[in-house]
Amino acid sequence: MFAIDLNSDIGESFGAWKMGDDEAILQHITAANVACGYHAGDPMVMDRVVRIAAGRGVAVGAHPSFPDLMGFGRRKMILSFDEAKNYVKYQIGALSAFTTTYGTRIHHVAPHGAMGNMCQDDRNLARAVCEACYEIDPEIIIYYCAGAVLAEEAEKIGLRTACEIFADRAYEDDLSLRPRKLEGAMITDEDEAIARCIRMVKEGKVRGYSGKDLDIKGDTLCVHGDGPKAIAFVKRISEAFVKEGIEIRPFR
Amino acid sequence: MFAIDLNSDIGESFGAWKMGDDEAILQHITAANVACGYHAGDPMVMDRVVRIAAGRGVAVGAHPSFPDLMGFGRRKMILSFDEAKNYVKYQIGALSAFTTTYGTRIHHVAPHGAMGNMCQDDRNLARAVCEACYEIDPEIIIYYCAGAVLAEEAEKIGLRTACEIFADRAYEDDLSLRPRKLEGAMITDEDEAIARCIRMVKEGKVRGYSGKDLDIKGDTLCVHGDGPKAIAFVKRISEAFVKEGIEIRPFR
Amino acid sequence: MFAIDLNSDIGESFGAWKMGDDEAILQHITAANVACGYHAGDPMVMDRVVRIAAGRGVAVGAHPSFPDLMGFGRRKMILSFDEAKNYVKYQIGALSAFTTTYGTRIHHVAPHGAMGNMCQDDRNLARAVCEACYEIDPEIIIYYCAGAVLAEEAEKIGLRTACEIFADRAYEDDLSLRPRKLEGAMITDEDEAIARCIRMVKEGKVRGYSGKDLDIKGDTLCVHGDGPKAIAFVKRISEAFVKEGIEIRPFR
Amino acid sequence: MFAIDLNSDIGESFGAWKMGDDEAILQHITAANVACGYHAGDPMVMDRVVRIAAGRGVAVGAHPSFPDLMGFGRRKMILSFDEAKNYVKYQIGALSAFTTTYGTRIHHVAPHGAMGNMCQDDRNLARAVCEACYEIDPEIIIYYCAGAVLAEEAEKIGLRTACEIFADRAYEDDLSLRPRKLEGAMITDEDEAIARCIRMVKEGKVRGYSGKDLDIKGDTLCVHGDGPKAIAFVKRISEAFVKEGIEIRPFR
Repeated sequence: MFAIDLNSDIGESFGAWKMGDDEAILQHITAANVACGYHAGDPMVMDRVVRIAAGRGVAVGAHPSFPDLMGFGRRKMILSFDEAKNYVKYQIGALSAFTTTYGTRIHHVAPHGAMGNMCQDDRNLARAVCEACYEIDPEIIIYYCAGAVLAEEAEKIGLRTACEIFADRAYEDDLSLRPRKLEGAMITDEDEAIARCIRMVKEGKVRGYSGKDLDIKGDTLCVHGDGPKAIAFVKRISEAFVKEGIEIRPFR
Repeated sequence: MFAIDLNSDIGESFGAWKMGDDEAILQHITAANVACGYHAGDPMVMDRVVRIAAGRGVAVGAHPSFPDLMGFGRRKMILSFDEAKNYVKYQIGALSAFTTTYGTRIHHVAPHGAMGNMCQDDRNLARAVCEACYEIDPEIIIYYCAGAVLAEEAEKIGLRTACEIFADRAYEDDLSLRPRKLEGAMITDEDEAIARCIRMVKEGKVRGYSGKDLDIKGDTLCVHGDGPKAIAFVKRISEAFVKEGIEIRPFR
Repeated sequence: MFAIDLNSDIGESFGAWKMGDDEAILQHITAANVACGYHAGDPMVMDRVVRIAAGRGVAVGAHPSFPDLMGFGRRKMILSFDEAKNYVKYQIGALSAFTTTYGTRIHHVAPHGAMGNMCQDDRNLARAVCEACYEIDPEIIIYYCAGAVLAEEAEKIGLRTACEIFADRAYEDDLSLRPRKLEGAMITDEDEAIARCIRMVKEGKVRGYSGKDLDIKGDTLCVHGDGPKAIAFVKRISEAFVKEGIEIRPFR
Repeated sequence: MFAIDLNSDIGESFGAWKMGDDEAILQHITAANVACGYHAGDPMVMDRVVRIAAGRGVAVGAHPSFPDLMGFGRRKMILSFDEAKNYVKYQIGALSAFTTTYGTRIHHVAPHGAMGNMCQDDRNLARAVCEACYEIDPEIIIYYCAGAVLAEEAEKIGLRTACEIFADRAYEDDLSLRPRKLEGAMITDEDEAIARCIRMVKEGKVRGYSGKDLDIKGDTLCVHGDGPKAIAFVKRISEAFVKEGIEIRPFR
């Protein structure tokens, strides 16, 4: 029996500023990566999105970031191990107030932006993120991108992991995403994108940009809700999964 | 059998800035009101003080505030009911990451600064604070100052309350603290201050500024750790409590 | 010879979040009230909008606020006189870095949101705002809403003032805007709105909600750029002003 | 005729938190590097220190930082060129509100903490800082540490520069400060420290840690005001300069 989780970054509005259509995408996903106030998200936003997610059975995860509202957490910052660990703890804790309110719990953690990118190869940062999670709740699942040292550190410490795959991106031989600026980085054909996802889930394989077949775990697919086209694609790929006998549900 | 809790505001350093001597006062108190990042406190500070408090059996409480680092939460802000409620939740949640880490839990909540002052008579704000606490954990105890509508709202919703008393302050007939700028506001004689505290705990009475005897619950005494003189007073009053058969322990 | 200034609040994006269409409205206004980082606006946004405004001869004004990003400056805060004064100074100064860069200067100051509302009748706050402006540059013009003590304080200190009028709002007899929630608060007929504006500019009169004719100075009209309908109205009213022989230019 | 400027970082308090004794050190220095709100300093602090500095003829400089209050600007951040440039502009502008108020102007700019460190060899960042200064006022002087690309970029753009020297630090052959953790990093003998400073000012030479004589410009000496011992050293070295015929005055 095959299964896939559909995740999306949500709750990235802040105060008077809106970003994304949380309500719309929450109709289609099974896991929500919720901003926790360091790059986006404020307590009003967090309350709203956790309430909706919990009401629909969408698994709620924390989407912690460097403390950088002005840069939306997209800028590299060099923190000490303890700073990174405690900042991640603070954010997970803050989100847990809302999961507790709505009768659910923190299901997973997916580092945001620059923190997420650095977790590909910064073992120290990755370890700090994992220790923060483990000390709050060893049941938390780490969402990582293929090839990340984050997964290794999570497994070392005893946390479960889910490998996040992307429908529209090409992979290099080391499983890193082919940089957007390079030719062939994007899979623009929707049918091809869907076929690739199905193969990643069912066979654990993807054809790399080089042409080589690569091993990859397809646990959770990252989807976007920005605009009707994105939502339409989520619906299309969901139908394809169902037709292929792939169950769409939160990762366990 | 009589008992008193000794509480103090701690964890009010921020980044490179130090405030107070948390380590020193934590040797003497039974309950810590820990800043949660909105007026003071950052995740590094929170981690350190919760670790020490938990290690000594000091009950850890949240000390939530308006979002006002530059004003240290001392400035009145007019928030909506939902804003106040969600901001308090966020802060309690953030602190809970550290209490969970160190094997303890949020014991109480004591609103800070302007938020605390407004909870004396702003029923809407008081209700928001209480709902935030109750929805996270109905076992949370509300620390309030005598006369506050905060206590009424807490009891209405089903939360337990602890009345905070002050050794060095005169009371008006409505149990409010006599404003510092007025004559007779401060009890400067230490022996008198101690005797008043003992009476508040044992008899539930205090002589008001007007001369009238007032009913008051002496559940938890607010103490300060700023400087050797303050610490010496905490030791002195603690010894007096013990001699009077008053147990010093967290409020239950 | 009659003249009107068209002003709009701009630069209210922040980091990754967009608000309003600054480029569009800057094609139509003669004065821009630029957010300075306390409620909205960051240095990237400020640089961009000041560059465009200066390039088009739009007068650049500061739109200072309480320090409240999470509340977009819409929440009342009780600051001391010196806090208010220095916070306004800081924001004007920050904006002046960009006006200097683009060869212009701070033309006016229009307090934002809750600070603006409080300047209607909080004489202390109004005075703080005016002193901040005067000490930086006595040529700064204060934009105020009819009836505000802000205008009185500005004139006392020696600052020039411009009275801001609204096309779509009804006035009470004390020149305050009729609250939106009350019946008859909005002037929904565009022709009537335009006729009222022309009369305010040419005759200095407006028919109040009560039916009484009121004295009002029509120096600067507040317009909005949120959406094609708003922009279309700005064009329409601009054409009407020109036809009536009213010059559209920055207030002097 | 020889001259030396004595500079110190000041205005690094924030809200309720105090850091350093600005009043004390302002009695002894000729140039103040004033925090501008991004790592420390708030408008109240800025107003106070600029007023005192201006009143004593101390040259006021901006001490801009990465936007990182929680880390006191000590953490590396990777900003784009435009972000760095506009953030520095914003901070200089904010400070200029207070220099204007007190009848003086921004004399120099000395990047703080991690931004300062990165200006040693990050040419892009250094250029951004210099462009920010130049576009606000080409008379601004760049304070740099020996060996910094910041000086080269400043000179390329047409800004004057002042080389900051340190009394208590050993120099490597490339004029970088010998890292504190290494043996011989600190010059602990006060007489030796003073003699080295005098030689740097008069001869433009310093004996490096390797034993080699190095060329260095001694334009401005960085001093500290944290505690009576630091202040006593400032007095001692000042007397030594005067005795050697070295005038103590702001760099021009």
